[in-house]
Amino acid sequence: MDDLRSLWRVQPRERPDLDAIDPDADDGAPKKKSRLEDASEELVERLADLQSRLWAERRRSLLLVLQALDAGGKDGTIRKVFTGINPQGVSVHAFKAPTEEELEHDFLWRVHHHTPRAGEIAVFNRSHYEDVLVVRVDELVPETVWRPRYESIRGFEQTLVDGGTSIVKVFLHISADEQADRFRDRLEEPDKRWKFSTGDLEVRKKWDHYQEAYSDALGETSTAASPWYVVPANDKKYRNWAVLQILVATLEEMDPRFPEPEAGLDDIVIV
Amino acid sequence: MDDLRSLWRVQPRERPDLDAIDPDADDGAPKKKSRLEDASEELVERLADLQSRLWAERRRSLLLVLQALDAGGKDGTIRKVFTGINPQGVSVHAFKAPTEEELEHDFLWRVHHHTPRAGEIAVFNRSHYEDVLVVRVDELVPETVWRPRYESIRGFEQTLVDGGTSIVKVFLHISADEQADRFRDRLEEPDKRWKFSTGDLEVRKKWDHYQEAYSDALGETSTAASPWYVVPANDKKYRNWAVLQILVATLEEMDPRFPEPEAGLDDIVIV
Repeated sequence: MDDLRSLWRVQPRERPDLDAIDPDADDGAPKKKSRLEDASEELVERLADLQSRLWAERRRSLLLVLQALDAGGKDGTIRKVFTGINPQGVSVHAFKAPTEEELEHDFLWRVHHHTPRAGEIAVFNRSHYEDVLVVRVDELVPETVWRPRYESIRGFEQTLVDGGTSIVKVFLHISADEQADRFRDRLEEPDKRWKFSTGDLEVRKKWDHYQEAYSDALGETSTAASPWYVVPANDKKYRNWAVLQILVATLEEMDPRFPEPEAGLDDIVIV
Repeated sequence: MDDLRSLWRVQPRERPDLDAIDPDADDGAPKKKSRLEDASEELVERLADLQSRLWAERRRSLLLVLQALDAGGKDGTIRKVFTGINPQGVSVHAFKAPTEEELEHDFLWRVHHHTPRAGEIAVFNRSHYEDVLVVRVDELVPETVWRPRYESIRGFEQTLVDGGTSIVKVFLHISADEQADRFRDRLEEPDKRWKFSTGDLEVRKKWDHYQEAYSDALGETSTAASPWYVVPANDKKYRNWAVLQILVATLEEMDPRFPEPEAGLDDIVIV
């Protein structure tokens, strides 16, 4: 397989200009819509195979960090990319506003608990990055508190990498118009209406602040060992295909193997 | 859908005679093999739909306890039944030999931590039942310790039920011959060989003791609110279909609903 990861990767410590990245881009994708879905189906199968080897090997692990603005497609990406994978060996954790107990610890305490065990793929639906995003935009803490967190995050992720965890961080990049369309969808479709929160509209007003906070965070924390990928995500099929490409290429590079059998099995007769 | 659960349910506090239950039985199944697979595929889709409602409702939860002897098919059941489900909202935990820290607590402490949160389906691959099974057969504690655990388990599970968790407990029932065949498979297939442990042969020698311990445990802890099901499991396709039937019927009875939308959404215009 071609390794297409460089299409979306944020160069180490290089601040991406999100305004210059087209949320409708379809770089690298097969031209026909139907071929894109076929390609994704094939990637899901390869992901399932790689995951079963990673789980059997029980030595290394993979962490996928998913970030996006509201209606950016985090839930849909998880459903489409990981449905078809054995849920034994995959854990998904959605981080909400921190609890009182969590606030009584440093900002990495609660996420550390959910990092993947050996053999596992862990998915963070939002993550410790909220502590340099919403926390910054809403001025929940002063800059003297949130700015040093980039360094904390780099150190934390390096610790995970040194412990055998491969990290993939994905920002799902949508346009403001696309977000508006998705909000309207939620309002109009009866089965989606419960997802709509008027609070989302308050967040939407801060769109430019968030783009700035994301650009800074991605630039400050994209490293060779723990890269960020900006995936154009207005088109859901392209988004799923791109995330699958990144995950499969990362796992193929890891090349997990079934463990060696016990010694001395050749003479065993089962009675 | 017909509710077929009574085919496999252990009557409350009635000790099942496992010797009298045919592990090759195919009660209730469509006669044609191909129809069985189609039926299972349809059930997986219904399970996915019910799970998405349970997750959205975020009020109740489901716990599936899976028990079986070695090579009884626990891993395969999880893979086949839950592949196709959104892993966000499903957690699978495999309980191994307890750690030192876990042994410093009562036997329910470690499992309590992994019970499902509101909206979630949790799967226990082995469970607190090992503390009245392997612990009894291997005489790790005296009968004065393990026998009172039936009462503890009934109380614990009642607590979960009262808190909004529906419980489904499944014993995958295979024959000694089928286990031998599966062990031979593992020895012969290169990609499965790593799964084989010579320790499994020691456990196999205690087959009759385990059947007795299972019969007692199932009888003592099958209650109306937290029933055991004995699923004939020599045939993997039948086993998957039966477990799906039980899960789907349980969730249909729960009838989870999407939550009510916020009030006052009618006049909102997205700009």
